Amino acid sequence: MLERFLVPEQARVFVQPESMLQATIEIFEKCGQSAEDAALSAEVLLTSDLRGCESHGVSNMLRVYVQMYGDQEINPTPNVRITRETDVTANLDGDTGLGLHVLPKAMEMAIEKAEKHGMGAVTVHNSRHIGMLAYHSMMPLEHDMIGVTTTAGNPLSMVPTHAAEKMFATNPWAWAAPARNEVPFVFDIATTQVAGNKLRLAERIGAPMEPAWISDVDGAPIMEEAPLPDDYMMLPFGGTREQGSHKGYGFAAMAEIMAPILSGMGPGFLMPPSPRTIMGHYVQAIKIDGFIDPEQFKDDMDKLLGGLRNAKPAPGHDRVVYAGLPEAEEVEIRKKEGIPYHREVIEWFESVKAEFGLGFELV
Amino acid sequence: MLERFLVPEQARVFVQPESMLQATIEIFEKCGQSAEDAALSAEVLLTSDLRGCESHGVSNMLRVYVQMYGDQEINPTPNVRITRETDVTANLDGDTGLGLHVLPKAMEMAIEKAEKHGMGAVTVHNSRHIGMLAYHSMMPLEHDMIGVTTTAGNPLSMVPTHAAEKMFATNPWAWAAPARNEVPFVFDIATTQVAGNKLRLAERIGAPMEPAWISDVDGAPIMEEAPLPDDYMMLPFGGTREQGSHKGYGFAAMAEIMAPILSGMGPGFLMPPSPRTIMGHYVQAIKIDGFIDPEQFKDDMDKLLGGLRNAKPAPGHDRVVYAGLPEAEEVEIRKKEGIPYHREVIEWFESVKAEFGLGFELV
Repeated sequence: MLERFLVPEQARVFVQPESMLQATIEIFEKCGQSAEDAALSAEVLLTSDLRGCESHGVSNMLRVYVQMYGDQEINPTPNVRITRETDVTANLDGDTGLGLHVLPKAMEMAIEKAEKHGMGAVTVHNSRHIGMLAYHSMMPLEHDMIGVTTTAGNPLSMVPTHAAEKMFATNPWAWAAPARNEVPFVFDIATTQVAGNKLRLAERIGAPMEPAWISDVDGAPIMEEAPLPDDYMMLPFGGTREQGSHKGYGFAAMAEIMAPILSGMGPGFLMPPSPRTIMGHYVQAIKIDGFIDPEQFKDDMDKLLGGLRNAKPAPGHDRVVYAGLPEAEEVEIRKKEGIPYHREVIEWFESVKAEFGLGFELV
Repeated sequence: MLERFLVPEQARVFVQPESMLQATIEIFEKCGQSAEDAALSAEVLLTSDLRGCESHGVSNMLRVYVQMYGDQEINPTPNVRITRETDVTANLDGDTGLGLHVLPKAMEMAIEKAEKHGMGAVTVHNSRHIGMLAYHSMMPLEHDMIGVTTTAGNPLSMVPTHAAEKMFATNPWAWAAPARNEVPFVFDIATTQVAGNKLRLAERIGAPMEPAWISDVDGAPIMEEAPLPDDYMMLPFGGTREQGSHKGYGFAAMAEIMAPILSGMGPGFLMPPSPRTIMGHYVQAIKIDGFIDPEQFKDDMDKLLGGLRNAKPAPGHDRVVYAGLPEAEEVEIRKKEGIPYHREVIEWFESVKAEFGLGFELV
């Protein structure tokens, strides 16, 4: 992440991953999830926090999930069922369950189909937020498979190139591919210039927006560096047409097509404004052995990733990284030192603990 | 395309598509291709010119192909064979044949597998340039399928974020999805800021580069608007890290993984500098019926694409378009008015006609 998104040093409280995992499990169980689903949901959020991707960890979305459970906008005990299935594809009804624990079941199906036939893809409709996409895309790695995830729906935040109204959510994509000795390639991005949760994080820490990160309410890109205004829309990555915003717009549209539309929900901009976060998802597992020997693939991945890591850096930079490398390094650091949360996040956990009468100890 | 990439009015020569198709077929046959392969190769190039994507039509690459055939760097009669196959995947040895006519065979296989099982994906190794990716991704449309294409290899042109050396080609992706009454969504992009062929086109017509389109030889983004310098590298889309170049870099790396690496060729930066354009490819066909009723899908696509087309435009813009719409409109115009080529391109055709003793008449 860019420096500006880090929690400022004076506001940091370090928490051991196990303590935060336990706290998060207790909260999800209090929301009505089964012990198994709560453990899985918490693992998805903590994997995000461990990887230094706190925009998608417990800091931002957990409080939204809690509100949604309280307002009956998420079903804590969904009856996930198959609505269509072929050898290598399936569509699941998520029964308004939280994507954090519903989507791993879809990816497990995709992996099973890929194991048998070479490839598998599963869509999920009628679901909710899935957290960090990388979690789901990384599931196939241990099976010598490549993983793909995308999701889209509502609420809307992104204005298409040259438009003056929001037509998409942040419509992210994540791809993961295994290597042998190098840490795996794990690429997880919003198709907006900046992830929505990162904007909320920036707001909390008072970080300014770069030019062309967001547009004004008429759709014109804001070209000055400034704090987040009250009203704005998110631009597709690229920002302006000259800098390729049609590419971000195109990948956003493909997420819309592969997730809510292919799962039968229709486009996000026609969904009702309530409940919050109505999402469709798409996951795919690709068995490397269906194309070449996985051992050769992993050797070649080491050549690719090692070559990138050892590429000559540009002036002002001390090294070249690839997607997944800094995140894997951060996991090692945070497992030892704990995860740095903003003091305000810890205060929220303490208030929930008191309100729900829970037993966890964060620090 | 941006205005600056259009052929200047005073240099335009309009040619009927049928005349240019015939000329191109004759040239490919003279290069040793079979009548069938020549017709297919020419169709791929002319589809590009008709769609207003002249960067990938006959203007730029045809002369390179002719040189490569002359230098025995492309096999005009490749024996394309399957090296690995499962229910839904396959890997093909392209036998150094031109991707223009080799890749449609791979996509046909993917479509056949998708028809039977719900999805199909085929990699091709040991192949050459495939022209406009959209051609291949559009093949599944008439079968009510979604198409995906990516390709990568050598020559290198792209410098990864914060690096000082070229590590990738332009590593493009194309996705296509059918609709009912709206023209299909067809999204075809380089993961560089600008397609390599567009830079050559800009050079021919003297168009300036935007800031952050290219880097200097040390990898630092060139932030002034200026003509193409002699030595430069192409930046990933996004341009600078602050504007999200790590997203272009990530999609470039995924193209590298899905095409040359998954097909068994290893990374492009380890390939020999000769012959020119050593490429691996990846195509995928996704049968909509494996997830939902294709009729519902096409209705929902009309809602999505119609909604985008009718979205309120931003100040200074008279409409919102989606990927594939301007291209489909251009086809209608060019079928009537002919295709505008740069005078210099016509001169090249006339010189080849004389050199090879061919019979075509362009104007």
